[in-house]
Amino acid sequence: MSQLGGLAWVVFLFLLGEFGADAVALAARASLQEAPPATVIATCSACHGSSGEGNETMAAPRLAALPQSYLQDQLDAFARGERRNASMQSMARGLTAEMREALSIYYSGLQAPAKVNVEVPDAVRPQQRGAWLALRGKWDNDVPGCVQCHGQGVLGVGPHIPPLWGQQASYLRAQLLAWKHQDRPGGPLGLMATIARRLSSADIDDVAAYFANAPDSALAGASSSSSAAPLNAVPPSAFRPAEESSIADDDFGREVRKGEALFLHTSELAKQYVGSPINCVSCHLDAGRRADSAPLWGAYTVYPAYRRKTGQVNTFAERIQGCFNYSENGKAPPLGDPVLTALETYAYWMARGAPVGIRLPGTGYPKLAQPPRAPDFDRGALVFEKNCALCHGADGQGQRSEAVTVFPALWGELSYNWGAGMEQIDNAAGFIKANMPLGLGGSLSDQDAWDVARFIDSHERPQDPRFTLSTEKTRELFHDAKFSMYGTPIDGHILGSP
Amino acid sequence: MSQLGGLAWVVFLFLLGEFGADAVALAARASLQEAPPATVIATCSACHGSSGEGNETMAAPRLAALPQSYLQDQLDAFARGERRNASMQSMARGLTAEMREALSIYYSGLQAPAKVNVEVPDAVRPQQRGAWLALRGKWDNDVPGCVQCHGQGVLGVGPHIPPLWGQQASYLRAQLLAWKHQDRPGGPLGLMATIARRLSSADIDDVAAYFANAPDSALAGASSSSSAAPLNAVPPSAFRPAEESSIADDDFGREVRKGEALFLHTSELAKQYVGSPINCVSCHLDAGRRADSAPLWGAYTVYPAYRRKTGQVNTFAERIQGCFNYSENGKAPPLGDPVLTALETYAYWMARGAPVGIRLPGTGYPKLAQPPRAPDFDRGALVFEKNCALCHGADGQGQRSEAVTVFPALWGELSYNWGAGMEQIDNAAGFIKANMPLGLGGSLSDQDAWDVARFIDSHERPQDPRFTLSTEKTRELFHDAKFSMYGTPIDGHILGSP
Repeated sequence: MSQLGGLAWVVFLFLLGEFGADAVALAARASLQEAPPATVIATCSACHGSSGEGNETMAAPRLAALPQSYLQDQLDAFARGERRNASMQSMARGLTAEMREALSIYYSGLQAPAKVNVEVPDAVRPQQRGAWLALRGKWDNDVPGCVQCHGQGVLGVGPHIPPLWGQQASYLRAQLLAWKHQDRPGGPLGLMATIARRLSSADIDDVAAYFANAPDSALAGASSSSSAAPLNAVPPSAFRPAEESSIADDDFGREVRKGEALFLHTSELAKQYVGSPINCVSCHLDAGRRADSAPLWGAYTVYPAYRRKTGQVNTFAERIQGCFNYSENGKAPPLGDPVLTALETYAYWMARGAPVGIRLPGTGYPKLAQPPRAPDFDRGALVFEKNCALCHGADGQGQRSEAVTVFPALWGELSYNWGAGMEQIDNAAGFIKANMPLGLGGSLSDQDAWDVARFIDSHERPQDPRFTLSTEKTRELFHDAKFSMYGTPIDGHILGSP
Repeated sequence: MSQLGGLAWVVFLFLLGEFGADAVALAARASLQEAPPATVIATCSACHGSSGEGNETMAAPRLAALPQSYLQDQLDAFARGERRNASMQSMARGLTAEMREALSIYYSGLQAPAKVNVEVPDAVRPQQRGAWLALRGKWDNDVPGCVQCHGQGVLGVGPHIPPLWGQQASYLRAQLLAWKHQDRPGGPLGLMATIARRLSSADIDDVAAYFANAPDSALAGASSSSSAAPLNAVPPSAFRPAEESSIADDDFGREVRKGEALFLHTSELAKQYVGSPINCVSCHLDAGRRADSAPLWGAYTVYPAYRRKTGQVNTFAERIQGCFNYSENGKAPPLGDPVLTALETYAYWMARGAPVGIRLPGTGYPKLAQPPRAPDFDRGALVFEKNCALCHGADGQGQRSEAVTVFPALWGELSYNWGAGMEQIDNAAGFIKANMPLGLGGSLSDQDAWDVARFIDSHERPQDPRFTLSTEKTRELFHDAKFSMYGTPIDGHILGSP
């Protein structure tokens, strides 16, 4: 690649990051120096179709409008033999590196299949196994839903997370099996290989069928046991939250589902109360069910409680208001608002059978022991680059799909504010250790978790709504002396100064 | 007693009922025809003192300002040998019936001992055994606190419930033992005999010591086991609410105690939200702990819930608001008000360990089976006269001590309104069967409970706050067709008509 080409790529990648998949076609055309020869394209088209639309029978994937870097990575991996497929390996080896790049640019620039409307999906039921896996995941085995990384509508997010929409179901199925059986490199952070290993073959059939819009195997009455043992699941909690399938189709059940929808899609469905585009589920994984991720069942049973943060006893509804005011950087719904009642009802339903007033194992975020070395910004920056930037972006600003947040911003104007619990590095470290990277919880060392929490929470973010007189005074009144960076200097700037 | 004397007594008793113990002296003097001879009084004074103040060493009770009918009943019982005491039996037998009446009038007319201020007692602790028995009772054995019938400040209530204030502790102890060992008639409804049988000897020592202002035996370190087996206690519930002794002296514990005080003294401590002088504890016995009396632990675990009454899912705080608006005939505190938060915290604390979302045995009021005969007003009137009038008054208007409600009004302007759950005769029948007369729960037949509930709920009471257009329309919209009398005629009057 020439120096000029390199610069063009920087611009291209910048645009790609900035505007997402929509901008790929335009940007790719603008930067394309040489189109691949028609003979080469004809060869590809034999399987992938003349518009790069793929071929279901041949399990040949859609290529059109996939991220260029993703396509190039795949061709290179076939050429090196790291990704296995007899015909693709042979094809790729026959192409120069430049030709592989040109092909990836070409296919990336083709028109994507017609998009679906990105809508909040109808309340899905766990019996709809494929849909459930795609939208909600399989958190008993630490598997996030497809949409949690590929975006609502699975349109793809950024250069490394391709769209699943319009992809061939047969291909998706084959790839999940390939990851499961180590016939394909694991992808960034090895995430897809890890996830595929946690899925049973039946799970893979179901989720592929969902993307094919085929009847869901479970709905069609087929037996689809998902009995694969957890490989790296969270330690089983003493408490199992209520099963989704127990939500009745009555007035109470409708309220539970309303609360669940608000929990998953807060920034869309409770827009008026949300400042930064963050959803409840961003900090409370698996729809608030996951232990060590501040599960709702754990919180519900320990309120009303006296909180030092407010200097009084707060009810559960008041605690939720705190999330809106700080973590969502918004203005909380008033007590009695239908949004609060629905969220409280959802939490109550989930806690069914839990003992009132007793803190269950898995409540809140785990408290990490102090690491051997004091948490460090620079080491944290490296941890971030390696483990977090893929999803949250190199600049920590998160990623969106069709204006809907897929990965939340970790600092800046669109992030949680200086009043949120997550601004304390002990809280952030506990959350990160247990849950991050998404689907790879527990994989970072304690030291890494502390360092990256220190790094993240040493960036500017929206002002603390409790701001009083000065940053110094506000720190003194409301911030933890040990674990908050608010009011402390970073590169000459006092964090939180107006 | 002459015809004229009889009329005077009617007037006297009316005044007594209307103005309480304060009026006794005046009314008694006004109606006294013949004072007892000085020689007779001198004999009585030898033990009871020249002012009728009693004598602790001799276990001779205070007589001054006790209700006249009560004193006369006792003298008559001694004369008949039903109440046993060697000297009193001999004395009483030596007096004519007229003299016994004259003596009762005389002593009733003497000045009462100086009164205490009637204040909400400081939060009592169960370790203070005597105080706890006096103020809270021993509901595990179905024993109400003394104050629940004798009034806050135990100044006595009406003609049949004497003051305990200023009474000789040795005498109180002796009488409780006499009832326990059947050496004294059981009193109205046999209530005191039943209660005394449910107390251990240690309980009796403790409560007598409390009234003597002597150091409480438990506080003084003495062992005071209350291990008497229940005689007629409520069936043990599967759930035991949190022990009072578990309330910590911290910010949370203080909130629990605040809620408890509000629960017991609602009409004093939450005056601004209460219309009729009724306390939470009036319908939720034993400070909200008692099974089958709509215990707070049972209610807490089943909210939020969808209610037909409101057509939506209500939180627990909203459910409490309903109590204020209907059962208390008031205006509920707004959501977030400290009164609601304290009450919710109290309920939450009491429910510690109960499973969220599961209806425990003993929740609400029991559902009675339909009785063999349709509930009947006239039969109910007889049940009422025999079992309820003693405390709630022949006119159902309850009784007060120093302007503080001891027994709530069951109908009329000071009662619950037409929106309260208790206006439904099925609810009232369930409550009455399980809990009434106070301390004698379970003693009425199902038929009696249904009949008296029908009688009570066929009286006028404050309007339904949901009143819409007309009584007919309001009945249709909000009232149970089978179990509400609202909008139905009684003696030509339509209940609930404005």
